Amino acid sequence: MKQDKPEFSHIAKSGSARMVNVSGKQPSHRTARAEAFVRVGRNIAEMLKREGGLAKGNVQETARIAGIMAAKKTAEMIPMCHPLALDAVDIDVTVGEDDVHIESRVTLEGKTGAEMEALTAAAVCALTVYDMVKSAGKGIEIGPIRLMEKTGGKSGRWTREEADDAAD
Amino acid sequence: MKQDKPEFSHIAKSGSARMVNVSGKQPSHRTARAEAFVRVGRNIAEMLKREGGLAKGNVQETARIAGIMAAKKTAEMIPMCHPLALDAVDIDVTVGEDDVHIESRVTLEGKTGAEMEALTAAAVCALTVYDMVKSAGKGIEIGPIRLMEKTGGKSGRWTREEADDAAD
Amino acid sequence: MKQDKPEFSHIAKSGSARMVNVSGKQPSHRTARAEAFVRVGRNIAEMLKREGGLAKGNVQETARIAGIMAAKKTAEMIPMCHPLALDAVDIDVTVGEDDVHIESRVTLEGKTGAEMEALTAAAVCALTVYDMVKSAGKGIEIGPIRLMEKTGGKSGRWTREEADDAAD
Amino acid sequence: MKQDKPEFSHIAKSGSARMVNVSGKQPSHRTARAEAFVRVGRNIAEMLKREGGLAKGNVQETARIAGIMAAKKTAEMIPMCHPLALDAVDIDVTVGEDDVHIESRVTLEGKTGAEMEALTAAAVCALTVYDMVKSAGKGIEIGPIRLMEKTGGKSGRWTREEADDAAD
Amino acid sequence: MKQDKPEFSHIAKSGSARMVNVSGKQPSHRTARAEAFVRVGRNIAEMLKREGGLAKGNVQETARIAGIMAAKKTAEMIPMCHPLALDAVDIDVTVGEDDVHIESRVTLEGKTGAEMEALTAAAVCALTVYDMVKSAGKGIEIGPIRLMEKTGGKSGRWTREEADDAAD
Amino acid sequence: MKQDKPEFSHIAKSGSARMVNVSGKQPSHRTARAEAFVRVGRNIAEMLKREGGLAKGNVQETARIAGIMAAKKTAEMIPMCHPLALDAVDIDVTVGEDDVHIESRVTLEGKTGAEMEALTAAAVCALTVYDMVKSAGKGIEIGPIRLMEKTGGKSGRWTREEADDAAD
Repeated sequence: MKQDKPEFSHIAKSGSARMVNVSGKQPSHRTARAEAFVRVGRNIAEMLKREGGLAKGNVQETARIAGIMAAKKTAEMIPMCHPLALDAVDIDVTVGEDDVHIESRVTLEGKTGAEMEALTAAAVCALTVYDMVKSAGKGIEIGPIRLMEKTGGKSGRWTREEADDAAD
Repeated sequence: MKQDKPEFSHIAKSGSARMVNVSGKQPSHRTARAEAFVRVGRNIAEMLKREGGLAKGNVQETARIAGIMAAKKTAEMIPMCHPLALDAVDIDVTVGEDDVHIESRVTLEGKTGAEMEALTAAAVCALTVYDMVKSAGKGIEIGPIRLMEKTGGKSGRWTREEADDAAD
Repeated sequence: MKQDKPEFSHIAKSGSARMVNVSGKQPSHRTARAEAFVRVGRNIAEMLKREGGLAKGNVQETARIAGIMAAKKTAEMIPMCHPLALDAVDIDVTVGEDDVHIESRVTLEGKTGAEMEALTAAAVCALTVYDMVKSAGKGIEIGPIRLMEKTGGKSGRWTREEADDAAD
Repeated sequence: MKQDKPEFSHIAKSGSARMVNVSGKQPSHRTARAEAFVRVGRNIAEMLKREGGLAKGNVQETARIAGIMAAKKTAEMIPMCHPLALDAVDIDVTVGEDDVHIESRVTLEGKTGAEMEALTAAAVCALTVYDMVKSAGKGIEIGPIRLMEKTGGKSGRWTREEADDAAD
Repeated sequence: MKQDKPEFSHIAKSGSARMVNVSGKQPSHRTARAEAFVRVGRNIAEMLKREGGLAKGNVQETARIAGIMAAKKTAEMIPMCHPLALDAVDIDVTVGEDDVHIESRVTLEGKTGAEMEALTAAAVCALTVYDMVKSAGKGIEIGPIRLMEKTGGKSGRWTREEADDAAD
Repeated sequence: MKQDKPEFSHIAKSGSARMVNVSGKQPSHRTARAEAFVRVGRNIAEMLKREGGLAKGNVQETARIAGIMAAKKTAEMIPMCHPLALDAVDIDVTVGEDDVHIESRVTLEGKTGAEMEALTAAAVCALTVYDMVKSAGKGIEIGPIRLMEKTGGKSGRWTREEADDAAD
């Protein structure tokens, strides 16, 4: 992992945690895309695909809704996050062979943000998948949860793929 | 991973999501312990250890507080969780060589619970560590987030260690 | 409508609003069932039934989840309601010829409650149906929202049906 | 009821619920006016008018405040609603012969909204009236809750009256 | 002021903040009474008394409701507070010659609490009085906010009056 | 105290509480600075300074974080406050000889605000200090809580110092 800016902007010189002051910034169009995995194991993954009819997609749909609602609560949960007016939140939940894959996308126009909102959406979506399937098996793990892409703001576009290539 | 109870208690026969009815259950003493990792890389880990004086521990302390407060909000975030009166929430945050390790412990007396509360505490604590250090480097990953131990309730004590041994 | 207890328990002698003091009461098993209607018109009702495959039930499922989560927030929204630990919340959403019918059921063990929780669940579920379909037509109306049945507590079982019969 | 836009903007092509992406929209001045009724019966209506002195208006005032506070929580309660910065919320509560009439008015400058905020304010105001008077009589009903007027945004001004005339 | 227990129970041996573990405690009946003052000055105090008719008491009533609702949110605001099911919250707001006096009373049955709930109710009630009258004059001050009486729990009954006498 | 604007903008002509309509206003850069005191007594003040190592500053840091998070919740707690997007919140907590001094600073760009946000941050920070040290002594008092400086908006810059000078 490359360290591109060697300081913690959330820690004041006095050593105390603080909200970064964004009052000098201009609002800009910002997006972030994050992903999360829930390692449910082969049996639960099959159950999630098998459940048909009306039921089909209800674990996934409940988790998606929880993730979307959580994105709106990011600043309430993460102490130093700024409250932001989101333009859009969207989440895909896909069941794989032995895991559930979550992709969240957040769009907003603001002086900061989108990254923590996308990660919070993905994390709470993953926790909800866990909650919905945990009666069918213990030992489930969540992770990795990570940023995939970010656009807007001073630092412009960042993608995990290009960052990984650069690191090679 | 062993599947020990092949059904989703959060999905009704009709296929809809539901809160499990716990009205027939007796309240019992319950605990859960979960862990989470934040893969911050070697540079940030060193920065987290280096910051001395008053500052020392402020990223960690902010994250701990966020995690404790999140445990109390579990039922607000996870749609099918029951609201519970927690007896205790405690979180340790330890900086390793290239990661941050989080351990959360939740105690309550109730008809259900502790597991999702401990996982939510660990997850939001991890998201807060991420938020506090993200200005110092991109590419940080969260995970795994997982249950380590659970006691109380009908199913009694479960530990990840014993479950892993049994799976060998 | 029969007036069975001619006073407002939420208004103190001084005329000010207050939370009723329930400290002398014993917790008892309580349930409440409420219903709500959303008058969406024939076209939207048909659209709600027609949408097939994965989509089927997503308006309804989103509304159900919103209602369940709202039940847990009743004491936060209704100023004089007591915070209560719910044992179960369940909601059915059924699409009729020109309306959507919502039935909510709440179970808890407490010194008061269930009635406002069931009504709040039904109301927020109805508002969410409205929000999800409003792009397809204006003029939608919500109502009636009403209690259907209540058990537990000092006053015992009450059903709308029997009350209506008695009123004849 | 006329169906003027035959699709659900809150349902993605994949069939999943989503927040509508408003990032391409310009903020505009928006207002919405909604109403709700609480059918309390003749006795309670008389009690509500009779209570004099300091007390006068306290059921109504408590309900108004609950409605105003709920308008600010709309995006927290209705899963696909955008968080919005409201410019004004005002509510009138009037006691009639056998019912309570609620009118809510919301003003904001945003890319979307006002309609759900006004309806949520009216609904929670009605639920609070219900809660405050329910000790004096069972069988109370809430409804209809409905939009009366909406201005701003792409679709411009809409009033229920004109829509009803057009439908004749 | 007498220091009766020379340690901070909210600080663990490691120096980190923690929720005190109350799992070994038995629930008991607990009450707390707190007061707060808002120094509004003579003019505003007169205005608060003069406003007649329906309006009379609306600043006070709005503040009372805000305080009652805040008591229910204590554990959400104060990081190390336990979530508690309150049995009753009541607040009196009295306008004096040049100040507003607030008295809050909280009753609950729990393993801890009532003290912070009563203080939080009084503080938020005072902040609301401030907000409602601030357009009529700057320089308003809040305070003191303080506990007047506490009963229940291991330490039994405490009153400020007796404590002050003992300190003489 | 000088009364500079003899009316309550939060009370409508009808006497009911209302949110002031800010829709005609232009957003402007606004700041507010407030302070609060916690009278903890000499013993607790010494304990707060003495606690060394990692622990040092944890009561203060927990209180700072609680205050920052509360600033973001102002509109949720104070009924007639507008929801605002804060640009920055910062809080200093200083231990004196027998008290704890809190200074909060809030920056935002909006049509109203900053004053109540700074006061709410200071008040909740003070309540948290109280909660964290109350096990070490009863009789602690909070106050005064007061605005020190305000800039932006129609009324421009106000400082307590200049106002006090003018009052002499």
